[in-house]
Amino acid sequence: MPHINFNNNFPGIRSAMAYSPETAAPMGVLAEILLRSNDGLLAAERELIGMYVSYLNDCFYCNHSHGAIACIYLGGDTALIEQVKKDYTNAPISDELKSLLAIAAKVQQGGKFVTTEDIATAKATGATDKEIHDTVLIAATFCMFNRYVDGLATTTPTDMDSYPLRAKQIVDNGYGNHVFTNKQPI
Amino acid sequence: MPHINFNNNFPGIRSAMAYSPETAAPMGVLAEILLRSNDGLLAAERELIGMYVSYLNDCFYCNHSHGAIACIYLGGDTALIEQVKKDYTNAPISDELKSLLAIAAKVQQGGKFVTTEDIATAKATGATDKEIHDTVLIAATFCMFNRYVDGLATTTPTDMDSYPLRAKQIVDNGYGNHVFTNKQPI
Repeated sequence: MPHINFNNNFPGIRSAMAYSPETAAPMGVLAEILLRSNDGLLAAERELIGMYVSYLNDCFYCNHSHGAIACIYLGGDTALIEQVKKDYTNAPISDELKSLLAIAAKVQQGGKFVTTEDIATAKATGATDKEIHDTVLIAATFCMFNRYVDGLATTTPTDMDSYPLRAKQIVDNGYGNHVFTNKQPI
Repeated sequence: MPHINFNNNFPGIRSAMAYSPETAAPMGVLAEILLRSNDGLLAAERELIGMYVSYLNDCFYCNHSHGAIACIYLGGDTALIEQVKKDYTNAPISDELKSLLAIAAKVQQGGKFVTTEDIATAKATGATDKEIHDTVLIAATFCMFNRYVDGLATTTPTDMDSYPLRAKQIVDNGYGNHVFTNKQPI
């Protein structure tokens, strides 16, 4: 049961965002810019980073929501999604993405955990400054989203079929503020 | 030395925001809404919560920046600022603010650390749902800002006189995007 009365029955972050649309608006804009771009990092890679940080933060709602979105971008490869969560170092992804996931995992612990060696490793795989910047900010942003979702004890859907349906809406329509406040049942 | 080349010499979060103005814009809007309102929580209380989370995250730049802003709102009471950081339970602040700082400290650890008892304690002191919501989101947002600042190893000013000067600019002009990207030396 949520810690406060949201006056709505939306799941996860949508309940908090519908409760506070004025803060939801810039959060939606930030998610749209950070997660839907293919400039440098692909949208699939951005979602994998967000999913992985959410997994490390033990945020069930965010980890499954963004895992489902990444899965669509990756052509439905659910095995890859699970492997990235549990052991990305042996997943069939690029060395660059592995080095960026390592940085994201450090950011999840705290900004100062990122070392010059982590950055040098990423640069050696071809990561640009922009890709490193975006990785750090995506990881930092999910440390916010995850805490918003769980710090208010928002409702977590247990019907796992709902996540891919919702993910398709995000892939099709983006993270605009309407996503969080509309009346759609999913 | 910063982990990436920001192409500017701004300190702290301003360097990252000037590097990435498209993400800086919604982050500035979010800060403006969350920290400058007096609806429910006073701006001084909002800044104290942000400062305290930054202190717990060991983010020197954010903790001193927002401590300096709170100090202006509190009429220059630097002793109170220090006491809130080091032992807020014995600081001359309201029981309600103490209970909200306790929630913020839980959010700093992770969203799931917030318990129904923490919420009940806050409500018993008079905290409203909106004040609890804003506390959780302010704490979550600083977990993002702090990681953005330190995860990219932004420059931390060592001249402590610069923080009150910068704080006055924020108090006077707000957190609009221009704050992070203008050419002012402070």
